[in-house]
Formats: sequence, structure tokens, C-alpha cells
Amino acid sequence: MQFSSSLLENAVNEFSKLPGIGKKTALRLVLHLLKQDASFSREFGEIIIKMRDEIKFCQRCFNVADSPVCSICASPSRKQDLICVVESIRDVIAIESTQQYNGVYHVLGGIISPLDGIGPDQLNIEQLINRIQKEETQELIFALNPNIQGDTTIYYIQKKLQPSSVRVTTISRGIAFGGELEYADEMTLARSISNRLPVESYMSK
Amino acid sequence: MQFSSSLLENAVNEFSKLPGIGKKTALRLVLHLLKQDASFSREFGEIIIKMRDEIKFCQRCFNVADSPVCSICASPSRKQDLICVVESIRDVIAIESTQQYNGVYHVLGGIISPLDGIGPDQLNIEQLINRIQKEETQELIFALNPNIQGDTTIYYIQKKLQPSSVRVTTISRGIAFGGELEYADEMTLARSISNRLPVESYMSK
Repeated sequence: MQFSSSLLENAVNEFSKLPGIGKKTALRLVLHLLKQDASFSREFGEIIIKMRDEIKFCQRCFNVADSPVCSICASPSRKQDLICVVESIRDVIAIESTQQYNGVYHVLGGIISPLDGIGPDQLNIEQLINRIQKEETQELIFALNPNIQGDTTIYYIQKKLQPSSVRVTTISRGIAFGGELEYADEMTLARSISNRLPVESYMSK
Repeated sequence: MQFSSSLLENAVNEFSKLPGIGKKTALRLVLHLLKQDASFSREFGEIIIKMRDEIKFCQRCFNVADSPVCSICASPSRKQDLICVVESIRDVIAIESTQQYNGVYHVLGGIISPLDGIGPDQLNIEQLINRIQKEETQELIFALNPNIQGDTTIYYIQKKLQPSSVRVTTISRGIAFGGELEYADEMTLARSISNRLPVESYMSK
């Protein structure tokens, strides 16, 4: 692309550094900013800078936070002895959006994936083990993506927890609500048959 | 979406104000910024603000510029009496990227579209007419999108120019290079037959 303005070119380059945004999309976004009032761009830029400069990670659960402890950990209405273990902040937001979970979280910051060079030491696993011992956690719910890496991570953490009496569960896997049996993969379908539920317990949920 | 951090929420909201970016994409972009060094976000924000505050529109052709006259208008190697009329800055960038055009431009800032409430008065048409008279332009090339609005705009401007002796042309329309005849719409195909070219002139281009 040839630009007649270096200001425009720099802005397009900045946008195209973001994931999933190519040069053409970046140009579309920049031209949109040009159409808006200058205050729109100023606010946009300032909010991004402020976010990155001031955001913190919760000392306890590693979720994003505005203060040293996140609002979920600090909430008195949350069950502090029920921990949901997730891969990333994105998963916390997804679970919070259901408005069905009233425990707290622990963000691992990734999952064990030797092929990508991610071992247990790069994740917040040690902190989870210490936290469970210190806080006398009653239950640990794994909400990791259902794949080999997720299962490996669950297996690893469960081994590490062995002497502890904490109850360990995982979110149920099966056919998604609204999904169709014929398009489900064999592994999901096989597991959902072997992990079948009594109809009464299913209907009451 | 439920956020445990208002800083994160504000940043996601800012991104999702941009066209084509929904909440989920906005979150992905913000989490990407969080993974990068703080200097990345600061540079990103500052470049956007600087662009919007300092960018100018060329007084002559209405293209974006870093100074009162754009680099294309100011270039001595460009034919100043050959004007290509385009709808937007985006089209200038597309044509410049071909590196085949050595005239100057005139950005209309839109096309006549009564359905969208855009009349000739909202576009830089008056300025184009004045410019042609003042600069003694030799040729005007219309490079507008081939649709009803584009054709209406060409017709309107040509009428306005009537007493002038400027040569008026339009970019050729036809089957795109690499396109397939069987998928072309009837109007394009019919026009490309009636506007057929001698093979010699086609091959030499």
C-alpha cells in the first residue's frame, strides 16, 4: 500500500500489529477514526494507555483487577472455598456471564503443552497448590478446554494434590445444548453415553 | 459480558465502537495488548491520537496529507493537468498501489446517493469544477465504483462541465483479470462486449 501521509501510514501499521487485523482492515478502522470527531480518537487512545498502565493481576487468583485483589476474590457473597481453575481471563469472563457460578477462580495463565514449550513451571500451578493448602479449599472445579492439553493439566495438578482431601471435579462434557447428535465427534458422543445422567438430575438443572 | 475490571471493560468498549469489531473480537485485542509490554500500548495509543490531531486534508485535492498540500499534489514529477476523480481516500491508496498512474487526484468525499441523503452539495464537486477552470486541466478520469450512484455522479459532473473543453474519461469496466466469464453478471458481460477493444491495444497494456 502507498500512503500519501506518514501519519496515516503509522496509524495503519499500529492497527495491523493486532492479531487478526490485516492492512486493509487497519485502513478501514483508521478511516473510520478520521470520520469521527478528534475527541473520539483521543478518548480511544487514552483509555487503551490507561488500561495497560493501571491494570493489575489479582495476587490471589491472577485474574485481571483494578486493585491488588480482584472484585471476585474480594466479594463477601462468593464461596471462597470453591475454586474454579481456568486457563485464561477469557474463561473467567465466559463463566461470569452465565451468572450461575458463585465461587472464586484461579487463572493458570495457559495449559501444559510440551509441543508449544509450555511446562508446569510457566503456569500458576505452584501458587494453586499453596493456595489450596493455605485456604483449606473444599472443592476444585476444572473448567479447561476438553482436549489433550487440558486433560494433561488436570492429571498433573491432581497428582500434585494427592495427599490433600480437596474434592476435585471437572465441568461436564457432552453434546452442547442446541447441538445435533449426528454432527458430534465420536469421542464426545462415546463419553456422553458413558457419563450419562439420571433424567431427574438433568431436568432439575 | 461480565468483567471483573472496569479498566478492561472500558478498553473493550472502546474497541467495540470500531466498525466490524464486536465484543468478543474487542476482548481478544485487549487481551493481546495485556500480553505485550506496556510500551506497546502506549505507542499504539499515542500514534492514534497524534494521527487524528495532526492529519490534514489537502486544500487542493482533499486527500489526506501531513501538510496543507498533499505529497501527490506537491510532486513535480506528477502531471498536474491530469485529474483522477475518486470517491474516497481509500481509492487513492488503491490506485497509488498500482504504481501506474502519474497524474493527480480529486477526492469527492462520497458519491451522489439520494437514498442515503447525499446530494452534490455535500461533496467536493463545486471545488472540482472551480479547480478545472482555474488549473486548465487537460483530462479528467473518473475512477468511481461501477454502480448507479457512480454513474449518476459522473453524469452530474459532466453536465456541470459542459462549456469546458476538458477531456472526460472513465476507467474501463469489464471482466476482471483472472475472473471467469460464466460467473460475470449479465450487465458487465454485455458492456464488455459492446466496449470491446482491438487486440493490439489490449496486448500492449
